[in-house]
Amino acid sequence: MAAYTLGELARLVDGRVVGDDSIRIEGVATLANASPRQISFLANPRYQQQLQQTRAAAVILNESELPHCPVNALVTAKPYISYARIAALFVPVPTQQCGIHPAACVSADATIHETAWIGPNCSIEAGVAVGANTRIGPGCFIGENSTVGADCLLVGNISICHGVHIGCRNTIHPGVVIGSDGFGFANERGQWLKVPQLGGVVIGNDIEIGANTTIDRGALDDTIIEDGVKLDNQIQIAHNVYIGEHTAMAGCSGISGSTRVGRRCAIAGGAGIAGHLEITDDVTITAMSLVIKSISEPGVYSSGIPVEQNRLWNRRLVYLRRLDEMANRLKSIEQKLGTIISKQED
Amino acid sequence: MAAYTLGELARLVDGRVVGDDSIRIEGVATLANASPRQISFLANPRYQQQLQQTRAAAVILNESELPHCPVNALVTAKPYISYARIAALFVPVPTQQCGIHPAACVSADATIHETAWIGPNCSIEAGVAVGANTRIGPGCFIGENSTVGADCLLVGNISICHGVHIGCRNTIHPGVVIGSDGFGFANERGQWLKVPQLGGVVIGNDIEIGANTTIDRGALDDTIIEDGVKLDNQIQIAHNVYIGEHTAMAGCSGISGSTRVGRRCAIAGGAGIAGHLEITDDVTITAMSLVIKSISEPGVYSSGIPVEQNRLWNRRLVYLRRLDEMANRLKSIEQKLGTIISKQED
Amino acid sequence: MAAYTLGELARLVDGRVVGDDSIRIEGVATLANASPRQISFLANPRYQQQLQQTRAAAVILNESELPHCPVNALVTAKPYISYARIAALFVPVPTQQCGIHPAACVSADATIHETAWIGPNCSIEAGVAVGANTRIGPGCFIGENSTVGADCLLVGNISICHGVHIGCRNTIHPGVVIGSDGFGFANERGQWLKVPQLGGVVIGNDIEIGANTTIDRGALDDTIIEDGVKLDNQIQIAHNVYIGEHTAMAGCSGISGSTRVGRRCAIAGGAGIAGHLEITDDVTITAMSLVIKSISEPGVYSSGIPVEQNRLWNRRLVYLRRLDEMANRLKSIEQKLGTIISKQED
Repeated sequence: MAAYTLGELARLVDGRVVGDDSIRIEGVATLANASPRQISFLANPRYQQQLQQTRAAAVILNESELPHCPVNALVTAKPYISYARIAALFVPVPTQQCGIHPAACVSADATIHETAWIGPNCSIEAGVAVGANTRIGPGCFIGENSTVGADCLLVGNISICHGVHIGCRNTIHPGVVIGSDGFGFANERGQWLKVPQLGGVVIGNDIEIGANTTIDRGALDDTIIEDGVKLDNQIQIAHNVYIGEHTAMAGCSGISGSTRVGRRCAIAGGAGIAGHLEITDDVTITAMSLVIKSISEPGVYSSGIPVEQNRLWNRRLVYLRRLDEMANRLKSIEQKLGTIISKQED
Repeated sequence: MAAYTLGELARLVDGRVVGDDSIRIEGVATLANASPRQISFLANPRYQQQLQQTRAAAVILNESELPHCPVNALVTAKPYISYARIAALFVPVPTQQCGIHPAACVSADATIHETAWIGPNCSIEAGVAVGANTRIGPGCFIGENSTVGADCLLVGNISICHGVHIGCRNTIHPGVVIGSDGFGFANERGQWLKVPQLGGVVIGNDIEIGANTTIDRGALDDTIIEDGVKLDNQIQIAHNVYIGEHTAMAGCSGISGSTRVGRRCAIAGGAGIAGHLEITDDVTITAMSLVIKSISEPGVYSSGIPVEQNRLWNRRLVYLRRLDEMANRLKSIEQKLGTIISKQED
Repeated sequence: MAAYTLGELARLVDGRVVGDDSIRIEGVATLANASPRQISFLANPRYQQQLQQTRAAAVILNESELPHCPVNALVTAKPYISYARIAALFVPVPTQQCGIHPAACVSADATIHETAWIGPNCSIEAGVAVGANTRIGPGCFIGENSTVGADCLLVGNISICHGVHIGCRNTIHPGVVIGSDGFGFANERGQWLKVPQLGGVVIGNDIEIGANTTIDRGALDDTIIEDGVKLDNQIQIAHNVYIGEHTAMAGCSGISGSTRVGRRCAIAGGAGIAGHLEITDDVTITAMSLVIKSISEPGVYSSGIPVEQNRLWNRRLVYLRRLDEMANRLKSIEQKLGTIISKQED
């Protein structure tokens, strides 16, 4: 079991110990559930009350929270960042494996680094290259001529189609599909003719892709995900989309074909962006909003409507449909009012 | 082939036969398609007309529908419930298998009950336990130290990550992912630092999870799904969500991190619930609605808007954007009107 | 490598060459990226400027664009259709395989056509039939008594449950689930009783199904997808849905149980259609719209709202909730105005 003294952890995050820096820390936990062998953190003021009752060995917190801390403290400027770095020490490391599981099918024409691991029931086709220390978990399939760089984790049951290029230090969760055909059809007298999808997908470095997210291959050029992008679960990325560095997208959001999203954008859950648009850097789209025009100014954009009681909401809908009638009545009132006033002034 | 007399079926559901209780029933079907060897049901008045033309051997229905029934009747207070119980007799039972398929990879450190079945191309890691009569279909992967209780059905191609605990009598459909990392990142000077996801997932008993639904593991504490919850397809459950007993969620809905949903709630298709909220018991959220505040009163809540003809809808949007201008004009009219009235009264 | 003269391509699409019909074409590319050995196309006027700078060997275009073309031209009435036909010549053909991979598990009671291919880690159960030239990629599972017709491509990691019937010339992308149980439960004193899902799924011919799309089996009758339907990624089709010929649905859309959608409909991304409805032929539903009533007139229907700056949008929401108050004030103004006018007329 991993264990560190509080002093060792403080050095790691460049923080200051108030209390016993020799206390032994064996794990991380929430304020409410931490045992006297675990460290916790306070990053959100709403949990201040839990601080006062915590049994943690120590708490990572801001200078300003120090007076309320009943146990050892690790004071840092950014407690959540410090917590993330410390928690990383306690991630259970899977039994280190390398090589090719006997129940994997790996083409003789694939190049697997000697430190990589290919799990059971994987299918790795010709021309594939897998980099150093990369783990391909059970049941993954990697199509012809695709590449996966070094230090990646493909957890399991992931589908990488042919001609997909994935960089280094990426984590990909189960059920992800990369390189499926884009949705391209030409209408010919009421029927749909398939437009071949001949582009690929290029995934940069330091990217995370959540469970069951899908990323289609390009029609001619590639679909591109730049370094540091974080994609949650069940996201749909259509063909020829480009996503700039360090953009984050939450679950169930989607981007239609050929749209370019800038750097450091934040797309909230269930939001949708139409095709052939340009979204500039530093744009936030809030939950369940719909974007149908390009956005050239950084900022926060919304069209989601929060729930009300059903009875009230149905009334809103009735009035929404009477708005043009109300506008007409308003106009008519203003005219009559004009007449009255001019008469009064006579 | 399973077959029962109408009398036997009536005893099973505590109902009353009107007609021939010795007639042999070999299956269930709709009123329109039932053959004279099948039983049907009427639970929705919209199908009353089909009752009059049915060729079914018998029909399960309410006392009040009895006069309209042209064939044998099985009268019960709740025809749909009775139908569900009877239909269960006719579910095709897969060829009974137990043991481990030779093409499955099962760790020597896993504990598989002797009556359980592990299908081909499964990967079962160390420390896993699988209970009595549980069927793990083809292509499933179960990560280290996860457990699946008795009498479960995992249909196939399902991913259960490490440290996930699943109770008894659960049905899980293909493509489901349980225990993928939650979407936790801390922003450090424009880049995203991964916050390790160290919690697990606890799934109770008598739960159904639809195809391609995803349930993330907790950040520190567990994500929890209580007994009797029913999840449809393509639902996204984020880290540390809690769902209370007997809540049902329809397809494509989603719940963001750390939200607690009460008991007996009904979340309709495409609805989204933001993070860190509390939804009390007996709350219904209608289709494609967005919840961004906690709900403390049981009831029905909505924000979905039904379609209109595109031309009309575009007009609504124009007026919606003119509402503040209309409010200003209304105010100005009221002021002028006040002046006029006071002048008239002079 | 496939290669054709421009003249050969012109004959294929019934077009006219302006320039050198003997020039050799080795591939397709965008106007911006085409090399002098590739053919490109102009179908969207927004790319006209790129035409003038293209280095392509030739460009497929309309008569009207001919004067602006700096290279060889292939003139056709419908450039995008012609492009699609020509691009199909350059699709990389996977190494032709037939037979059953030694790492596939195929029941002795399954019938696999001698020209079909079953990839590694597939599980094919008893009673399954697979037609001529069909490719079942790695990791697919096909349940008891299901059938897949001729000339289909199942890319990989696809789940076909029992009793599903799939026609000919269909392309199915990874992660697709067909034949999972529909979401059918009867409420009995606050708990959910499963209603057995005894119907199947019937998929016609010339259909494409995108990555991670789910299609549930019927409750009693079948779920039906007619010929020529195109489904994008992450679509949810509930039990007993019927989709008519040549209808196309974009990503993340969904249809609830027992709804019938007509022929040649277009359902845009994120749109949702409630259950038990009838949507007639030639209906378009725009992005993120919600349909809760049947539609009997062809046309375009919408309820999606495009984003505005968050500050503006929040103001819209405030006014939306004041609409009934505004309507009351309007009524009161009209009454007062009536009184004033009648007094003035006195």
